[in-house]
Amino acid sequence: MLPPALDELARLLGRLRGVGQKTAQRLALQLLDSPDDYLRALGASIAELRDRVRRCSRCRGLTERDPCPTCSDPRRRDDVLCVVAHVPDQSAVEASGAFDGRYFVLHGLLSPLDDSGPEEIEADRLVERAADGKVREVILALPPSPEGEATGHYLAERLRAAGVERLTRIATGVPHGADLGFVDRVSMAHALSRRHEVDK
Amino acid sequence: MLPPALDELARLLGRLRGVGQKTAQRLALQLLDSPDDYLRALGASIAELRDRVRRCSRCRGLTERDPCPTCSDPRRRDDVLCVVAHVPDQSAVEASGAFDGRYFVLHGLLSPLDDSGPEEIEADRLVERAADGKVREVILALPPSPEGEATGHYLAERLRAAGVERLTRIATGVPHGADLGFVDRVSMAHALSRRHEVDK
Repeated sequence: MLPPALDELARLLGRLRGVGQKTAQRLALQLLDSPDDYLRALGASIAELRDRVRRCSRCRGLTERDPCPTCSDPRRRDDVLCVVAHVPDQSAVEASGAFDGRYFVLHGLLSPLDDSGPEEIEADRLVERAADGKVREVILALPPSPEGEATGHYLAERLRAAGVERLTRIATGVPHGADLGFVDRVSMAHALSRRHEVDK
Repeated sequence: MLPPALDELARLLGRLRGVGQKTAQRLALQLLDSPDDYLRALGASIAELRDRVRRCSRCRGLTERDPCPTCSDPRRRDDVLCVVAHVPDQSAVEASGAFDGRYFVLHGLLSPLDDSGPEEIEADRLVERAADGKVREVILALPPSPEGEATGHYLAERLRAAGVERLTRIATGVPHGADLGFVDRVSMAHALSRRHEVDK
């Protein structure tokens, strides 16, 4: 019973992952009750998104100017490169405040089931980036999952062959503040096998 | 670490009900990976929504032309008017295939806590609509909730005073196909008190 314009909007919204038909209809109705200026701003923001945001030619992170602010920042170290799978992972590393080097964003992981191979994650471009003569260490900040492990192994081999001096990966274990009774067994096994001396 | 255009989009999406900050960011990133023509279509659809869709002057339902197709349909009965709170409720009644009269959409319910009074649900307009000389019965298809009950009582009083001959409400009870062990106690109480003779 929805008018065509609303139906069309619900159909378009329903193409987004995680947005079912009911949710799409609810969102469309909610948008109809929203202020005009909000709708114009949101509509323009979506329509112009890909004209404004592109991938940085150095790190493949998302940016409006190339190279991106992080790659252009003279205060960051050039000798450590942190490899992440996705843009939010880069934000999480940055938010830790524990890293002041450069980044490389794969925009995916190796996954035979999803047809995602070395070309999809731009492995050649990463190897080239890491071989710029300044990078001494590459940190693999990949998710602790089968795909993350497989991608890490593949990239480590490629990077080692390209002469990268030091290859590291972020530690797995129990997360800060975790209720140990609810920690999954794989994380707990990692935390045990990677145990270290108590600081004096 | 997101570029401003993406941040702005996530901020706008985050203003929608039920869309948290994380979901908004995920949706913005997903949109960035979507095809250009999809983004232009979605953007235009949102920006132009309120120019295209308005409320029908007779039933207050949503429409692109006034009066709406349902109000203009000569095959529908003029003597029964079904009052619903929200547009999806109207779709649900229509989908049942058991109603071929006219509708009136309140776009809300009486709710003192939300500052929603008779003016917000356009009670005057409903009374005027029901007193057109053709309507014989008004069906209150309101949700079985405290707000639905309160709105039903208020409207029944107003409609009765305006001379509406027959006032009815949809039945509450156990829904079709329900596992009786999981039916809430209010529905079960209604189903018991409204029990009727087994059809012969």
